[in-house]
Amino acid sequence: MKREWDLLHTPGPTPIPPSVERAMNQPMIGHRGQKCKDLLKSIAPRLKPVFGTSGEVLVLTGSGTSALEAAVVNTTQPGDEVIVVVAGAFGERFAKICETYELHVHRIDVEWGRAVEVAQVEQTLKSSNQVKAVFLTHSETSTGVMHPIESIAERINELSDALVVVDGVSSVGGSLLDMDRFGIDLLVSGSQKAMMLPPGLAFVAMSERAWQTIQNNDRPRFYLDLRSYYDRLGEGQTPFTPALSLLFGLEEVLQLMEEEGVQQVSERHLLMQKMTRDACRALNLPLLVSEQEASTTVTSIRPQTFEAEQLRKLANEEFGLILAGGQKHMKGEIFRIGHMGYCRPANVFQYISVLEVLLKRLGHDFDAGAGSAAAQEAYLQGTREET
Amino acid sequence: MKREWDLLHTPGPTPIPPSVERAMNQPMIGHRGQKCKDLLKSIAPRLKPVFGTSGEVLVLTGSGTSALEAAVVNTTQPGDEVIVVVAGAFGERFAKICETYELHVHRIDVEWGRAVEVAQVEQTLKSSNQVKAVFLTHSETSTGVMHPIESIAERINELSDALVVVDGVSSVGGSLLDMDRFGIDLLVSGSQKAMMLPPGLAFVAMSERAWQTIQNNDRPRFYLDLRSYYDRLGEGQTPFTPALSLLFGLEEVLQLMEEEGVQQVSERHLLMQKMTRDACRALNLPLLVSEQEASTTVTSIRPQTFEAEQLRKLANEEFGLILAGGQKHMKGEIFRIGHMGYCRPANVFQYISVLEVLLKRLGHDFDAGAGSAAAQEAYLQGTREET
Repeated sequence: MKREWDLLHTPGPTPIPPSVERAMNQPMIGHRGQKCKDLLKSIAPRLKPVFGTSGEVLVLTGSGTSALEAAVVNTTQPGDEVIVVVAGAFGERFAKICETYELHVHRIDVEWGRAVEVAQVEQTLKSSNQVKAVFLTHSETSTGVMHPIESIAERINELSDALVVVDGVSSVGGSLLDMDRFGIDLLVSGSQKAMMLPPGLAFVAMSERAWQTIQNNDRPRFYLDLRSYYDRLGEGQTPFTPALSLLFGLEEVLQLMEEEGVQQVSERHLLMQKMTRDACRALNLPLLVSEQEASTTVTSIRPQTFEAEQLRKLANEEFGLILAGGQKHMKGEIFRIGHMGYCRPANVFQYISVLEVLLKRLGHDFDAGAGSAAAQEAYLQGTREET
Repeated sequence: MKREWDLLHTPGPTPIPPSVERAMNQPMIGHRGQKCKDLLKSIAPRLKPVFGTSGEVLVLTGSGTSALEAAVVNTTQPGDEVIVVVAGAFGERFAKICETYELHVHRIDVEWGRAVEVAQVEQTLKSSNQVKAVFLTHSETSTGVMHPIESIAERINELSDALVVVDGVSSVGGSLLDMDRFGIDLLVSGSQKAMMLPPGLAFVAMSERAWQTIQNNDRPRFYLDLRSYYDRLGEGQTPFTPALSLLFGLEEVLQLMEEEGVQQVSERHLLMQKMTRDACRALNLPLLVSEQEASTTVTSIRPQTFEAEQLRKLANEEFGLILAGGQKHMKGEIFRIGHMGYCRPANVFQYISVLEVLLKRLGHDFDAGAGSAAAQEAYLQGTREET
């Protein structure tokens, strides 16, 4: 089937709004000229509310992983003690980067599909008084778990001076992370998930305290040296040639978010999560993650009566509905639905109905239309005050 | 709500596939250069299967109405007797054009929401032996009726030498009109419905017999003189500057149709019609048109328990779902759903679920999820052989 007909519901990349596509399809500009300065100066202040910070948000040209690495190399020195919460593939990646950079890593391993408990972080933190930073994933894309960042950050800040570093790749733009209020020091993200852009931009938001650490850190680094990005920001510049068409698109993304309202964007994601989960329950589809631990942007299902990969294949072939599979040891065990970015309740209705058809084909037992009815009821409950 | 979020389900204009948008967004070319000749020569033969003809399909730059007018002015002379079937706003338009050009019009008025019967055409035809042409609408967009063109054309051809002229504006590309086999002499259409393009192109397909009449007709005409279009076609030219970006798009539309298969495109439309109608019945929504008389591209609903206009307003405000209202005396009486062109079963699932939510808001009585279940069942029935 041609891409034209696809219903892209992986947890990133996600569909691009037409106005963002149009914004990206503009003539190139010189990256040292006034037009680029104007663009960067338009973007910089408008990123702040999305990250919930009054501090600066730096824009790097790179995959989300480049921002994870930037967070590590800019805040630590070899031998530093750090804590990394590993509850899925992206926690694992943070740990791997920390190990690569010769840190002394205290891993907190959490069962995939579960969130870390505040007490676990607290206990590990208390086992050493040398911890320089705690690395956490907000929405663990590989499982659809959302860790309780607010409570964890609060506890870390009470107990230590460790920096709180959060991977918000699949949550920023899809779940309000009030960085300053939560006490997060570094919040990093990428462009291709709730930010409604193609991959290629990475974001690093910093607290004043993080900036002090970064400034005084003499670990060698060049492309990912956040000092160069910060120093150029005031002049409306980037240290290296930026992915200009993505910046054109980002300006339009911010426009769309402002028109809807950042708070409303977050509420829409929560509503889509509830619709999806309620529908899954009505369809007798076992959810991997509990209600309290569920991500607002991605939902994982661990089917019992059919093969996850068979469903994904059928969805792709028959409807162009692109779902994600499990990662690492969860491959074949689960399938994942992304509901973030350029996605709205009407898209949830659509994939639930499509799932119902596919489940019928697979001989899965449920009441016809029960998933659609549940998604509709969740929508009506969640929007009752608007009527 | 921004256009970005709209679910456009009027019976034309219809959504544009992204690859068609991209095709249209290409640099202008000279309309007398080789590139334009190549483009027109690529398009001309590939339009024929869409119209079900081995004859030529002329492309005019204009609204669909320009093609209706071209059909009239090219085939008739003042005072000629013609029959016009009037069963809605577009039959009415054909009649008006015929009257404007001083024809002697025998109207066959049919109740809005009903199809004409073969016997009615037969009877009118027998009342005069001077009828030069019969003007018919295939899919009457204003009501969602599809007239039995095949049987009517067959009967006209048995009984007379009258040309059979069909308005296929909302059917060509959405319902296989096998023009040559059905015995249709002129089949006209527009770009903005099942042809998946913006408005601006009009099509006229001609039989050999129609071409003879047109050639020998000395009624004054200039922009709509089909002789100029026909004469230039062989050279890969148009008589006047064509809407080039729409031609770029048309080439891609034909590519999409060929990849899916013209027969399959037609079957998809029939499937979407069945899904929509079955869902409406399950939702206790009264259909304006009977099963036998229903269009494959547009479905009209005449609600009894709420105001059609209130539903349309709510659909637009809450979901960006754009539905059409009634026309002329049916304004406020009915609402119409377009399901044609760049529209697939998953879109039907989507608007049915959205309708269910809106009907709940309006207090309409139905079993939760019943419409979704019915649409899914119709889909499964219609695609059973593929499993």
